Order: sequence, then structure tokens, then C-alpha cells
Amino acid sequence: MCGIVGVFCNDVDLTPHITYYALFSLQHRGQESAGMAVSGVGVNLYKDMGLVSEVFSNKILSMLKGNSSIGHVRYSTTGQSRIENAQPLAVKSRYGSIAVAHNGNLVNYRELRKELEIDGKVFHTDSDTEVIVYLLSSYLLDNDLETALSMLTKKLMGSFTLTLLLNDMVVGYRDPMGFKPLCVGEGEFGYIIASESCAIDSVGAELIRDVRPGEAVIIEDGDLRFEKIAGSDKKCVCVFEYIYFARPDSVIDGRNVYRVRYNIGRTLAKESPAEVDLVSPVPDSGTTSSIGYAHESGKPYLEALIKNRYVGRTFIIPGQENRELSVKLKMNVLRDNVNGKRVLLIDDSIVRGTTSRKIVELVRKAGAKEIHFRVGSPPIVSPCYFGIDMSTREELIASEKSVEDIRRDIMADSLAYLSLEGLLDSVGIRREDLCLACLTSRYPVPVECAMKC
Amino acid sequence: MCGIVGVFCNDVDLTPHITYYALFSLQHRGQESAGMAVSGVGVNLYKDMGLVSEVFSNKILSMLKGNSSIGHVRYSTTGQSRIENAQPLAVKSRYGSIAVAHNGNLVNYRELRKELEIDGKVFHTDSDTEVIVYLLSSYLLDNDLETALSMLTKKLMGSFTLTLLLNDMVVGYRDPMGFKPLCVGEGEFGYIIASESCAIDSVGAELIRDVRPGEAVIIEDGDLRFEKIAGSDKKCVCVFEYIYFARPDSVIDGRNVYRVRYNIGRTLAKESPAEVDLVSPVPDSGTTSSIGYAHESGKPYLEALIKNRYVGRTFIIPGQENRELSVKLKMNVLRDNVNGKRVLLIDDSIVRGTTSRKIVELVRKAGAKEIHFRVGSPPIVSPCYFGIDMSTREELIASEKSVEDIRRDIMADSLAYLSLEGLLDSVGIRREDLCLACLTSRYPVPVECAMKC
Amino acid sequence: MCGIVGVFCNDVDLTPHITYYALFSLQHRGQESAGMAVSGVGVNLYKDMGLVSEVFSNKILSMLKGNSSIGHVRYSTTGQSRIENAQPLAVKSRYGSIAVAHNGNLVNYRELRKELEIDGKVFHTDSDTEVIVYLLSSYLLDNDLETALSMLTKKLMGSFTLTLLLNDMVVGYRDPMGFKPLCVGEGEFGYIIASESCAIDSVGAELIRDVRPGEAVIIEDGDLRFEKIAGSDKKCVCVFEYIYFARPDSVIDGRNVYRVRYNIGRTLAKESPAEVDLVSPVPDSGTTSSIGYAHESGKPYLEALIKNRYVGRTFIIPGQENRELSVKLKMNVLRDNVNGKRVLLIDDSIVRGTTSRKIVELVRKAGAKEIHFRVGSPPIVSPCYFGIDMSTREELIASEKSVEDIRRDIMADSLAYLSLEGLLDSVGIRREDLCLACLTSRYPVPVECAMKC
Amino acid sequence: MCGIVGVFCNDVDLTPHITYYALFSLQHRGQESAGMAVSGVGVNLYKDMGLVSEVFSNKILSMLKGNSSIGHVRYSTTGQSRIENAQPLAVKSRYGSIAVAHNGNLVNYRELRKELEIDGKVFHTDSDTEVIVYLLSSYLLDNDLETALSMLTKKLMGSFTLTLLLNDMVVGYRDPMGFKPLCVGEGEFGYIIASESCAIDSVGAELIRDVRPGEAVIIEDGDLRFEKIAGSDKKCVCVFEYIYFARPDSVIDGRNVYRVRYNIGRTLAKESPAEVDLVSPVPDSGTTSSIGYAHESGKPYLEALIKNRYVGRTFIIPGQENRELSVKLKMNVLRDNVNGKRVLLIDDSIVRGTTSRKIVELVRKAGAKEIHFRVGSPPIVSPCYFGIDMSTREELIASEKSVEDIRRDIMADSLAYLSLEGLLDSVGIRREDLCLACLTSRYPVPVECAMKC
Repeated sequence: MCGIVGVFCNDVDLTPHITYYALFSLQHRGQESAGMAVSGVGVNLYKDMGLVSEVFSNKILSMLKGNSSIGHVRYSTTGQSRIENAQPLAVKSRYGSIAVAHNGNLVNYRELRKELEIDGKVFHTDSDTEVIVYLLSSYLLDNDLETALSMLTKKLMGSFTLTLLLNDMVVGYRDPMGFKPLCVGEGEFGYIIASESCAIDSVGAELIRDVRPGEAVIIEDGDLRFEKIAGSDKKCVCVFEYIYFARPDSVIDGRNVYRVRYNIGRTLAKESPAEVDLVSPVPDSGTTSSIGYAHESGKPYLEALIKNRYVGRTFIIPGQENRELSVKLKMNVLRDNVNGKRVLLIDDSIVRGTTSRKIVELVRKAGAKEIHFRVGSPPIVSPCYFGIDMSTREELIASEKSVEDIRRDIMADSLAYLSLEGLLDSVGIRREDLCLACLTSRYPVPVECAMKC
Repeated sequence: MCGIVGVFCNDVDLTPHITYYALFSLQHRGQESAGMAVSGVGVNLYKDMGLVSEVFSNKILSMLKGNSSIGHVRYSTTGQSRIENAQPLAVKSRYGSIAVAHNGNLVNYRELRKELEIDGKVFHTDSDTEVIVYLLSSYLLDNDLETALSMLTKKLMGSFTLTLLLNDMVVGYRDPMGFKPLCVGEGEFGYIIASESCAIDSVGAELIRDVRPGEAVIIEDGDLRFEKIAGSDKKCVCVFEYIYFARPDSVIDGRNVYRVRYNIGRTLAKESPAEVDLVSPVPDSGTTSSIGYAHESGKPYLEALIKNRYVGRTFIIPGQENRELSVKLKMNVLRDNVNGKRVLLIDDSIVRGTTSRKIVELVRKAGAKEIHFRVGSPPIVSPCYFGIDMSTREELIASEKSVEDIRRDIMADSLAYLSLEGLLDSVGIRREDLCLACLTSRYPVPVECAMKC
Repeated sequence: MCGIVGVFCNDVDLTPHITYYALFSLQHRGQESAGMAVSGVGVNLYKDMGLVSEVFSNKILSMLKGNSSIGHVRYSTTGQSRIENAQPLAVKSRYGSIAVAHNGNLVNYRELRKELEIDGKVFHTDSDTEVIVYLLSSYLLDNDLETALSMLTKKLMGSFTLTLLLNDMVVGYRDPMGFKPLCVGEGEFGYIIASESCAIDSVGAELIRDVRPGEAVIIEDGDLRFEKIAGSDKKCVCVFEYIYFARPDSVIDGRNVYRVRYNIGRTLAKESPAEVDLVSPVPDSGTTSSIGYAHESGKPYLEALIKNRYVGRTFIIPGQENRELSVKLKMNVLRDNVNGKRVLLIDDSIVRGTTSRKIVELVRKAGAKEIHFRVGSPPIVSPCYFGIDMSTREELIASEKSVEDIRRDIMADSLAYLSLEGLLDSVGIRREDLCLACLTSRYPVPVECAMKC
Repeated sequence: MCGIVGVFCNDVDLTPHITYYALFSLQHRGQESAGMAVSGVGVNLYKDMGLVSEVFSNKILSMLKGNSSIGHVRYSTTGQSRIENAQPLAVKSRYGSIAVAHNGNLVNYRELRKELEIDGKVFHTDSDTEVIVYLLSSYLLDNDLETALSMLTKKLMGSFTLTLLLNDMVVGYRDPMGFKPLCVGEGEFGYIIASESCAIDSVGAELIRDVRPGEAVIIEDGDLRFEKIAGSDKKCVCVFEYIYFARPDSVIDGRNVYRVRYNIGRTLAKESPAEVDLVSPVPDSGTTSSIGYAHESGKPYLEALIKNRYVGRTFIIPGQENRELSVKLKMNVLRDNVNGKRVLLIDDSIVRGTTSRKIVELVRKAGAKEIHFRVGSPPIVSPCYFGIDMSTREELIASEKSVEDIRRDIMADSLAYLSLEGLLDSVGIRREDLCLACLTSRYPVPVECAMKC
């Protein structure tokens, strides 16, 4: 999980601020580190551990002048949580300056790194982005950009949506399977490339369109063009962007994220109705689907749980211990709403089950007569190797247990997941164009090597 | 606006952690500074500017041992934003150690300070809390606690809900008008006194009951007792706690805050219906009333705006400039939900009108056909002198303009406020027991001196 | 041990910078905290824990505008090492603004505090400066400045050299015994009052003269005058300022500190000669007396020990453990200079003996044939109650042991202290005008109460 | 100017502390950044901007476990002052882990970098150390260590004294000209390699001997051996280590630094006597030669200037502006010692002349009758390209002006430099074994390329 940005701006002073606002609006995609590379006299790079608002100050932004920039917010998947792995990664070579911001995960990272090591390359980081930088840098020496990207694509296996700052050219590129989103916008200031359209909105620009899988968007000398780099038999758009990761106000590959989640709720209501007094979200991830469920079912939408706004998302704090603590600190029950009532709770997904159990317990203690749990996705049975931290199979409660076992585990009176068909209907994208690996265990590319690590 | 806490804990090591969790859950009541005083060998005090989680670390908590403590989170009303004004304020005198945490505002602060200065007292801070400390300290020298509190009450004019750490005794006290809330809970660890019941929930304790206006709760040698200190012809519970300030999961003076806001929505729907396609909150302050409005009106509840979770509340960042910036950074429209639709937006209140105008503009630009604005309170026409930063009358849009003028200002197609009767019905507390000064300009105590400052 | 400053400056922007430079040059007098109060619109106060260069930045200085200021660097004697005890201490009263910077120690602090507590006063700090502030503040209400200082003087027992900022008047005052130094300078910018003349030099000003014991220097409306406040049968100038504390480039009460230390070395050479190959200082405190000893004895001055410039003075880091560590980190022997040689080492004094033992051990291990230790002061046999941290009698090696025992302890081949007569000759001030209490156990004022604490 | 360290320690917990103390004692060689790489499970690296004591805490040290380590303190010569350029530089390759700490400067850096770039290499930093890492890494793939070092030596031109951490092997290497010092010590804990012997002393170890030019010292599996890697017709030991840079308590290539400086003073006294009343150092760099001058001339050694211990060395703060400020803040005259006297001032060298002029001015204003300036080195006429920041020729006052012109510039009554012969006599190393380029303009290796940059 990462967020990436590319900006071309007519006003050299404005560039870092546009990049900052865009990164800020993508903060939900990674809170571990933030960084920005700006092409002024050479490329200026600034990155550090922490939130966007912590990493950058007005003073720092004012020193990052130039027309072109890329930016990155990071949540680690490969590599430890260290400043060395923060992005963009910027190098210099015979080609000139190359800075790369990467969203995704290479499943053949180990092999590529070994290959490059055999070839004599030395590595400064533990990040798969360095492999991308090295390959790209080498291809660019003797090829034009389109060829270099094409060569890179043949070499890399896994997900890799990129923004590049090549001297003063800004490039966005989405791998041919299109796992991770990327879109382009235009504003008065110039152009912006970003992981999600909410970043385009945040800087007052208009969405032009999504970058297509296998396509590059190139901003050179102030002109923007799209180039088809690589084709693919199948697309593999990550379905979890719709289910959980993306901001609800984003539009990804033409599908409105809020609408998808609302549909999920409606579909769930049709598939798994329940006699309840209220429909309630697990905040905030279940909010939209709960509204959809309530509308479809005709049951009243009413909050059962209140979140303390001064903590971040549970999913995204590393370490199990912190995860448990943060449940306690962040949720409280609206006793009056649930006492003596039959409550239907909706969350977007269940990963380990620990949070769900605690929530059911909280609501039960507050006097709920019945608690029916609904999940806005099918069971997650397999780990993701394409950039989402669902960790090992052992941690995935649905990889080992039946729905009934999970129900008992989380102590709900009933439990129902969305069906795969229901999910597909709700998203509105063809099955063959989605990556459903975590739900079906059918990986779109071989992941043996990734699994061995 | 401040949050206060008092804790008695059987386990000296646990006290600071209980206090920390309680303060953390009251973070919405003040983000400027946080502090804690613990009675170990003498009173140990730690306070600093910043959020609770920024001010305290595990290391600092582990040094604050003792059975009794009080805590404070602050948002400045009197006094500048400086470390000198952070609370608790702790002093030593012949009586021993006295630490005070104060929620409220004294309208006769200037006079009392002048009086004390004439009497030779010197002041270390610009905070009205120091006046309370000096008076209390002097009364305690020759009187028992109950008498001292009674004398203090006669002297102070305005709002003053306090937690006190007097040597190792913990005291909670609510002024006889009861402007600001205070409640008491009991857990396995001991007792807790807090501004809101959500703090009691956060530490796994059970609410015993609210402290009544003019009543003290005293925890001495592990025993808790309530004492009536002062009577009053009238109560004056701040209605804005229900409308906006308190967390929705709190219960204040027996009234469930969520329920009140839900009722407000239903009442609004009855009073000011509208032919719309969806009912939408201004997040997060309008959420609960929107749900109520939707239920009553039968119109679908659907979000029009999404909030970036990585910014704080608008109201609470000082300075008009920051206020405008944060609107831009924190809100985005769900275009798909509003495009071509008639949208009803609900917010809890309108203070300056600037945020409302920006929101209407955002929604309009996203294609909304009509925008009907509903407000979960009557117009705010007069400043608050009892602890809420509504600043001067000049800033209150409703103090100068008619509802129709405001509608034009914020560019809504229709605008309706909740009626005062509707508010009273929704809250369910007798008119004579509420402070409605900001809505009616009828102040419960003379505020001439406060107005002159 | 503290350093104090008072500044009057024609240019309101220059005042904080003059004060900063002066404090910087007094850094040796206290490294725990630094602070400054400037009279602009009211008094602006800034203080924090740390070195002068750490506490103040250009940005902070630029916010402290005004014509008058006082400043303080602190090394704690009374009171814990906490921000609450940092100085200046600034209050407001009927009189207006009062800020106090104090160098010294009150021996009747406990009694005065108790008296004030009985009178109903409350205390915010554990510092004896607050007692001074309270008394002064009360005297100023009904008396002119001279009378107030006179009343204060009658009340306080111990040492108290002060700079005061009274509204926009700057005052320096030295107690009638004159324990701690204070001098006045004039520059193009205006006037400066400081603990030592090196601060006057550092801002390019010229020394006017020392403030006499019992005298005040008052800068009002740009005019400076001296006023005799209180007389005294005897002066009591701290002899350790000459021996150790003051910077060698300062002139105190007309005596050049460097010259005094040089004389000490010459006197030592006459009193306690030795057959040695070189005369070496314990750096840096023994440097000047070693030069004097070498000149008088005709033996070559040559360094035996080198100090790492990146650590502070040993004496001044609190806690025995840190003291030992810092010896190891800060000293190295010049093996080539001492190997096979008879070495004479000179230090200014011996307090606990631990540092001396380690140094002798270092030099011995480097091959010195003989090590003769000379001390530039008589044995310290009694604790100081007037502001120098020599702690308890138990820690003073000379309070319990004979010179011969100490010699064995520190493992020197010979050990000799300067005689009291020799010291008096070297300083050139009459015996009756010096405080020699730590060397003679004869305290100039009763210290029973101080000893009981 | 940098300081480097290599440590092998039997106790994995002790290694980082030994490295820390050694770096601390080399702090004078670079204050910009500090870093350490420890071979535990892989290599752990920690580095940051700042002093050793600021960069490392006990907590950080406790996380850096392993038997082998290298460390670095840096003052930038090539490359900007940025965290990216801090050392050690650590990479991974087919060979395994490689960490490099470098003291020196490559004069063919640009060419080597261009060559490597043509070969397709990409660069993460602007530091010449990365060139060393890349070459070394490539040679190590197919060669044993000795051959790799030999190949590296043939490639590099300039100065390069290195410590290497190659997996868990620690290596020290000194280029065949031996510009920069390196020595080896043994202690109870194991072995230490360091720039100067003072670091060996600081950890209680004993000096074994210096690493010879062209020699490597290799610590593998707890055993230490020396290996001759490369020969050279001539040695080129930097004479400025003796004149200024090294700590006086270090022994470099068998010559005692203190002794050399003492000799310099004596030689100066013979070459350039003067009728003066006192001999005084410019502190601290002129102290030792002043003592030597005093002894030889029979004139009394007496301090004329006192340094404020709370500032660092002038030479080492980058930026002309800061340099001027720090003279003012750091020096004061001992007026009593110089007033009416003929003063001889000795400094180790004159670079730009600005500091010398200010010092003469200070002493003159304090009343000195005559001021005779003596310099412990011949005039610096040419820039250093081997690691010392004497910047461009334009800044070197002696590159343009005669001694008489310089005398007038600094306003001294007489000025004399040490003769080259006198310097050689004082150092006691054969002329052909020293690098004297800055004094003679005869560079030991071609520096055309370096001069062009």
C-alpha cells in the first residue's frame, strides 16, 4: 500500500505545494514515510519517516522549486520500516537524474535482485524499488523511454504502478495487469498524476481519465501524451481498492468507489437479510455499505459505535500488540442505541478476526439482544503478494476456519459474507479483469518465489 | 472548552495510565495542551503543549506514581496559547499541595484579579484558574473543604467545573448553575471523575451518576461521597454540549447526546421539510441529526461529502486563515451522489458562515441541482462568556443578518434553523434549566464586565 | 551558581541580542536552563532547559522586543532540575510586572517560606527566588524602590545578587555582604549589568565599575544611577569566584581573576616547592596557577593532560555517576611528556577527590616517575550555603581526612594545599571582606536552619 | 577531514560502545555527521547529522549488536552537507555486505564517476565514497581481498584511508602515499583501528603500530594480520595533521604530535626571535608551540586571550559569516596581561587572515604596546585536494600576498612564518615522505582534473 503522485506545474514555486496537497489527500494509503523529488537544478529530494504534515514544513517546501515533481507516501510491504526505504528513490547515472515512486510489489524481486547482484550491482536498500531503478536506469541508457518501459515490463513480475521523474520529464506508468490504480488530471496550474482521483480533486483539478493497464502518461516540455507500452491478455485490477483501501470519494477505472460500497451493502441485504432493529457500521470502513444495506432492507441505519477521531486506522498500525490497544482506545458503544436491540453490524472485511471479536463483545456488553455480523467481501483465504499487508496465511482467519467457526470465534449470533458473485455485481467490472487472488487463491501470476521468502 | 478528569486508583502504578486514557477520550474538548498532577510524595506535575499522545510517553507516565490524580486538556478561552497557562495549576501553601483543573470561564475574572492584586497577590499566569487557586487556597487555610467550596462559589461568577487534588484527596465540583458537565464512575481500579461519560467508558468503568450543580464529589482515603455545597434557583446547563461539543457516546445529565442529536434531526424534518433526493450530513458534526432527519422524512440518508481523516476539527484550530485552509484540505464531494440531485445538507450550527458557504459551493460545483441547508440549532446571535470560543459578536453571522440574508450568503436554495422550541423538545430538559444565552442573548449572570474586556 | 544580566538598550530590536551574547559569555556559571524577560508591551518571558544556544533561536529573539531586559543562566542549588524553577521568574501584581533573576542562596528560605505560607501565600515553584519575588512585590506596593529593597534586605539572610525588571525599569542589586559579584558596563547601545565583566566585554561595552555590596544600580528612562541601599559591618565576597568559578578574563571587585590565579601559582611554588621535571595543569581549571608556579619555580610549564573539547566541565554535571564517566571521556595523557619524568600537577581545588585520583592514576600509568600534586586553595572542609554546589560535608574529602590521608587516597607522591595566608595574599582582599566559610567553617551568617534541611 | 574507526570486540554488546567512545575522541576531525555500521545479523547501520553525542543514544547503541563494526565522523569536502552523504556507506551485493568509512579525497573522482556511469552504474549520493564502494564491490566479486584492494589502489588517485566492514571482517587500509593516518590498537575487549592513537587511548587499549602506507590490517575470525597491498616510490604524509588537525595527544607514524608542535615553537624562537614581555598562544591551536617558543626564548609564557569553552573550532564551521561571528563569541582578551606589554602571539597557521586580524585588533585595543605574530607553519599558498577544506586559492591570503603585506593586513608589528626547513626539522620526517603541497604548490599526484571542477 502506497500512494504516488506526479506533478507538472507552470509555476516553479507552486509545484511542491501541489504535490504536498496531493500527498496529503493520499495519506490513507501510507503513514510510515513521505517524500518528494522536484526537478530544479538537478533533482531535489526530501523524505522522512512520518505523516505528510509532519515531514514537510512550509520552509522545506519553499526550498523545493521546479516545474516537475513526483511524490510518495509509504506503508511498508517489502523492506523494513526504515528511512533508507522511504521513497522516492533518486539516483544519477549517465542518463541523468532518475527518481522513482512505486506502488506495488514485485513477486520476482528476490530473483531479479540476485540476477542484478550476479551482474555486479550493489544495493543500498531492501526495497524492490531499487531493482526497478536499476533496470530502468540501464534500459534508458540505450533506448528511448517507451522501449525502456517495455523492457522493464517484460522483466518485472507482480504489481508496479510508478511515477517517474526523468530529468525534468514526469511519467506515470501502470503495469499491464493494472493491479494498482493511476489517473491523470488537469488544472489551471498544469497536470497531475495520482493513485486516486481524490488527489486530483484536492488540488482543484479535473480528472482526464485513468491510465490504462500497460499505458504510460508522459509530461514533457509541458505537453501531456498517453503511450501504450505493453498489452496483456487480462487485466487484474485489485478488488480491495474498492472494498477497503481507496477513499470513497475516488473514482477508479471508471467505477465510483462510494457507489461500489453502497452496492455491496444492497447486495448483502439481498443475500443475507436479518430480522434486526438497526443496521450499523463498524466505523469508518463499514459506513457506506451499511447505508446501502439499510436502504435495501428498509431497516433503520443507526450508529452503534463511535470512533475517537484522534487515532488512525487499525489495519495500518504494524504489530499485533498495537492493533489490540488501538481497538480499545478508538471505539465506544452507543449503549442507548443497542440496548435491548437486535443489531446488524457491517464491516468491509475480516482479516484476523480479533477486531471483530472485540467489537461484538463491546456491543454485547452494552445490552444488544442479538448481534448479526455482515461482511462486505467474501472470506479472505489467501495472502496478497501484490502490495497489501495481509501478511501470512496463518493470520487469515478464513484460510483455516469455516464461516460457522468464525462466527463462534467472534461470538456473533449470525455471520454472513458477501458472495463472490455479489461482489462482482457490486463492483461492475468483469471477473476476468479483477485480481481476486486473496478471495480465490488463484493468483494471476506465479507467486512460488514470493511464497518461499 | 476543556476536559477535566480526577482519578482515585488502588494501584499507584495504574493511576497515570487511567488518567491518560480518560484524557485521551476527552481530546475533542481541547487540543492545545494536556497535563496531569499525581499525588505521590508531594504532587508531581507534568504538562506541555500538544495532544495527549504527544505530551505523555510511557516513560513519563511511569514516573507519575500515586493513588490520586487530576488531569486536563485545554483549548484556550481566557489567556494566550502558552505553556504558562497549561493546566493543572499546582501550588503549595500552608494547607499543603493544591492542584486545580478548570473547565469554564469566570465573567468576573478581571474584578477578582484586581481585588486580589489590591490585596497584594501576585500572578504567574494570565489564566482565570489562578484566581480560583488563590481564593480556594486562602479559604482552605481556615475552613473545611465544604465551607471553602461554598465561599469560593459565592465569590466566582461564571462557569467553573473543577477537579481538585488537595494533598491526596480528589475532588470534583460543579458550579451551582452547572454550565459544564461532570460525572462520576466506578471501576475495579477505583473511581473516576470526568467531564463526559465517554471517559468513564474508556477505562472500563461504570457511570455512577452526574455530579449535580452545586454539588461536590469527594474521594478521601478511598471512600467516595457526594456533598451538596451550594444551591441555585436555576440550573444553566450549556445546551451546546448537546448540540456540538460533547462526544455523541456520552450521557450528560441523564440525557444521551446521540439521542438528542437524533431527535434534533427528526424535529428539523418535521419543522422544515424539503423535497430532496437525499439527506446528507456535513461530516462529522451533522451526522447524527442527518440520520434522524432521514428517518423522520423517509428520504434516503446518503453521504455527499467525505472527510479526510488526517485533519482535526475546523472549529478548534485558532485563526481565521487556518480555518479556511483546513476546509479545503478536509472535505471532498461525492460527485456521483449529488450530481443532478436535490441535496439536503445538515450541520449542527453556523457560526461565521464561511465553512457553510464553501461546502455549498463544493456541492454545487459537483452538479447538485438544489441544495437545502438545515441547521441543528437556532441561530447563534450572542457570544458565549462561559467557556466556548465563539469570539466576538462581529464574527457571529446570525447576530447581524436575517436567515434569508444568511441563505444568500451561503448560496443555498433554502435554509432553515431548528426552532428554540424544537431544540428544547429534542434535548428534553426544561428551558429554565438550560443556558441558552448564545441563542437568546439572555445571559444567566451579568456579563457586563466580561463584555467590556 | 548562576549568571545574571540586565540590559537597557536604545534599540528595541537589539536588546534581546545583547542579552543573548551576555548570557552566552556567562554560560560557565550554569548550564541547566536559560531565560530572558523583556519589557515590551508588558513583559515577555522566554526560558527553557538547556544551554543558551539551545534555548534561544534567532526567531525567538526576534519576538522579544523592548528596551529593557534581564536574563539568567542557572545551575540548580535549591530546587530540583525542572522547568518550573528556571528563571527569570516573572509575575504581575498591582505594582505591574516584576521579573527577577537571582544568583545566590537564602539560608532562611524555609523560614521565610513558612512565614509567607502562614500569611496565606501560595507557591508555584520550589525555588527561593519565589520568596524574593513575593516579598519584593509586597514591599513595592506601598514603598518606593529604595525602601522596598531595604526592607527586602532586612528580611533575607544568605546571598542574593539580583537583576530586576520592574515594568520597564532595570535594576541590579547586590546583598550587603556582597557574596556574589555584579558589575555595570556602558556601550554604544546603552547599559549592561552582569555577574562578570567578561559579559560586558562580550558585547563591546566598557566596565564602569562593580556594584558595591548593599548597593543598587537603577536604569530608569535611559538614565543610570547607583543608590546605596544597605550597609554592612563586613563584606563577604566569595573567594571561590577567584579560585574556580569566574572566567579568568573577568575582573571582580577590582581584582583581576587571571592575576589572582597566577599569584596563587607563584605563592604555591614558594610555599610548597618540589624537585620536578615539569609543571602541569589539570586542565582547564589549573592552567593559570600552573603558569604562575612554573614562572616562580623556574621549572618548565608543559602539558601532561589533554582535554577533549567536546565535553563540559566535570564539576557542573549533576550525579556522581556522570561525573566519573566524564573524566574518562574528557582527559588523555601526553605520555611522551610524562614518561620517566617527575611531574607536578596543579588543580584549583579538591572537592570529593575522585577526579584527582583518576588523574594521578592516568599519569602514573603513562610512566611518570613521581607525581606531586598541588592545590590552588586550602582544603575545603565545610559545605557552602550561599550558592555553590559542594553538597554535603560527607562528600568533602578534606572534612574528614588529613592531607596525608588524602595524598594516600589520590595516590600522589606528595600533596600540598595553598595556605589560607597564601590565598589571602594572592587574592589581595582583606580577610574580613571575604567569605572563607568553606575553608574555615566560620559562616558569616547563622546557617543552622540551612544545615537542618 | 574525517575520522574513521574499525572495531573487533569479543563481546557483541560492547562493540557499539567501544566504537562510540572512539568516535567521540575523534570528534575534532568532523562535526557534521556521525555514523556506525555493526555486523550482527547482516549489517546494521545508524547515522545522522550532528555530533557523536547527539546522533547516538544509549537506546540506539543497545540495538547495534555484533562483533565487528566501523564508524565515521564527517566534515564535508566533496558533496554537500546532507544526510545522504553521511557515512559509513553500506551496500549489499553478491559478495555480501560492504560498509565503507572513508577519510580522504579522490582527485580523479569525476573521471571515475563518469567511467562508472558510462558503464551503467547509478549513483545515490554525491560522495566520492560511493565510487570506492562500487569499485571495491566489483573487484571483490572475483578476487580475494588483497587483490581487490590492490586493484582499487591502481584505480584511485588522491587520498583514501579506509575502514571496511566486509560481512563480519574488519579491514583498515591506507593508500600507498599514506596521506591520512591510521593506527591499530589492542585491548582486553579485542582490536581497534582508528585515525588517531587518541581513540585507542580513549578505550583503554594499547597502540600496536601505525598502518603503513599501502598496507592493510585485517581482522578476521578474531585474528589480526597486516598485509602489504601496494608499494609506492614515495610517501606523502599530510604535514597538516602535525601542524593543526590531529589531537596533540596522538602519535602519528611514530611522531608525537605534541612534541612536533613543541619543536615548532622552539624552532620559531630560534628563527624569529623578538623582544617581547610575554609569549601567548592563539587558543587553542597555538598553545603547544607557544610553550615551546617560551622555553627556547626564555620569555614568559602567559595567556593573552581566553576562549569561551562553549563554542567549537573556528575553522570547522562552514560559511564565512558564521566564521566571523564565532570569533567575537569565543575570544576575550586578558587586558591585565597585555596592557602596556610587548606581546608575541603564536598561531598554528594563517588561512584567510580574517581571524588573525580580529585577534590582533582585540589585543591592541586592550593596550598592548607591540604585537608580534608568529606562525607555526610556512605560508599556505595552494589549496589542498586531499581532504582538507582550505577551499580555493582565492581565499588563501598567502597565495596572493607577501609576508609584509599580510603583516599590514593583520596589523601586527612584526610577522614571521616558520621556514619549510624549520618545519621539516620539527616534524622529524624526511621531506620526500611528507605531503607539503599546500606550502610548496608541488602536488604529489596530478590534480588538473580536481582543479577544473
